[in-house]
Amino acid sequence: MSSRYRAIVEYDGTDFHGFQRQIGQATVQAEIERALRRITGKAISLSGAGRTDAGVHARGQVVSFLVDWRHSAEELTAALNANLPRAIAIRATEEVDITFHPRHHARSRAYVYSIVDGKRRLPLKQRYCWVVSERLDEVKMQQAAQLLVGVRDFATFGQPTQGEVTIREVYQAMINRDEEELRLRIEANAFLFRMVRSIVGTLRLVGSGRWSVDQFEAAMDAADRSLAGPTAPAAGLALDTVNY
Amino acid sequence: MSSRYRAIVEYDGTDFHGFQRQIGQATVQAEIERALRRITGKAISLSGAGRTDAGVHARGQVVSFLVDWRHSAEELTAALNANLPRAIAIRATEEVDITFHPRHHARSRAYVYSIVDGKRRLPLKQRYCWVVSERLDEVKMQQAAQLLVGVRDFATFGQPTQGEVTIREVYQAMINRDEEELRLRIEANAFLFRMVRSIVGTLRLVGSGRWSVDQFEAAMDAADRSLAGPTAPAAGLALDTVNY
Repeated sequence: MSSRYRAIVEYDGTDFHGFQRQIGQATVQAEIERALRRITGKAISLSGAGRTDAGVHARGQVVSFLVDWRHSAEELTAALNANLPRAIAIRATEEVDITFHPRHHARSRAYVYSIVDGKRRLPLKQRYCWVVSERLDEVKMQQAAQLLVGVRDFATFGQPTQGEVTIREVYQAMINRDEEELRLRIEANAFLFRMVRSIVGTLRLVGSGRWSVDQFEAAMDAADRSLAGPTAPAAGLALDTVNY
Repeated sequence: MSSRYRAIVEYDGTDFHGFQRQIGQATVQAEIERALRRITGKAISLSGAGRTDAGVHARGQVVSFLVDWRHSAEELTAALNANLPRAIAIRATEEVDITFHPRHHARSRAYVYSIVDGKRRLPLKQRYCWVVSERLDEVKMQQAAQLLVGVRDFATFGQPTQGEVTIREVYQAMINRDEEELRLRIEANAFLFRMVRSIVGTLRLVGSGRWSVDQFEAAMDAADRSLAGPTAPAAGLALDTVNY
């Protein structure tokens, strides 16, 4: 008899065409489904909490699937890891209620975006950050980021993945600097398509002094996609946690 | 007229067959020489301070070459970076005395080795560390590492790259823990082939409790290559600095 399992997944997205299965492409979903097929001999389809884009990483993606498994959850974790490429790891697996859905039931998601400023090239960090050449003012960026918090129309920063509603609730948007590395941690009930990368690309304009905090606020309030700054690259982004 | 330049080089060694030029292989030296040829139209041979192995990284490798360059050192840095793959970056270039040799004139080299303990798989760190499954005791490891400091015969931990002398002087060997990550920083006048990785593989035996600190000392004092622990993987190692 099949039971439902939830797994927390970490991956380096650099060499994948995103999370979601696509014919003829290496994706994270396809790799985990292949591992499930190898273990069980059956075709098992899974769903994930967030459809991360090509090149985006995850520390705490959540997936769920039905499987007829007669051993412990720890053994399922180990069996999956033994059948996954090194760029993907299952951190933990647990049995959940049969009705659980990782996307529909998520209360919030948190993403972390890393920017390194002031150096042109960083071979040892380039897979996991956006290297920008100018020094960024994190105080100004935090003032702008703070404006994102609340229930707002975020149409400036992204398109809905389904439906037409562009209102989301951002619970937290914090910028921290650790030497040359700035990290934005942003948590919301849900995100629009490309929303975090669009916010980061716009915050960078504020950090470099090209935009004032007021300009950032005006662009956000206009709810007009054409007013956002350039979308930041995928490499700096990681899905950090999904909360239920 | 040609002048001699010294360049500080950072690279992700994962996808290279080491630093040193080898026919038919992608190496760091070959990539920089190719960039020099593209810029100058001439075949230029360079020498490096350390011959890092396949998969080993560098933050401060030093190379030197003769070039007929009529612009500034900053422009040479920019021209090289524009012609190098993303995994290699020139951090700085400066003109030096024509007699300078990056290996012969180096007073010391410092390497950093990263181990992550307690987790089986870490997709976002695997390129830059050694993931071991058991928790390591960094206090015991530091006690053993301290024994390396001084002028000693390090035959247990490596072979000489040329000649037969296995005596080296280790100036510093420090282990620091930052949450799940242990870092060994070791500085010496010079290193034997595979010396840092062999030391790390042996220190791990101490950290896991399989060896006592006394056993580590006895293996070192025996100056017998067959008594070392397993060699640690290349991914965790980076050439950090070369001092002149």
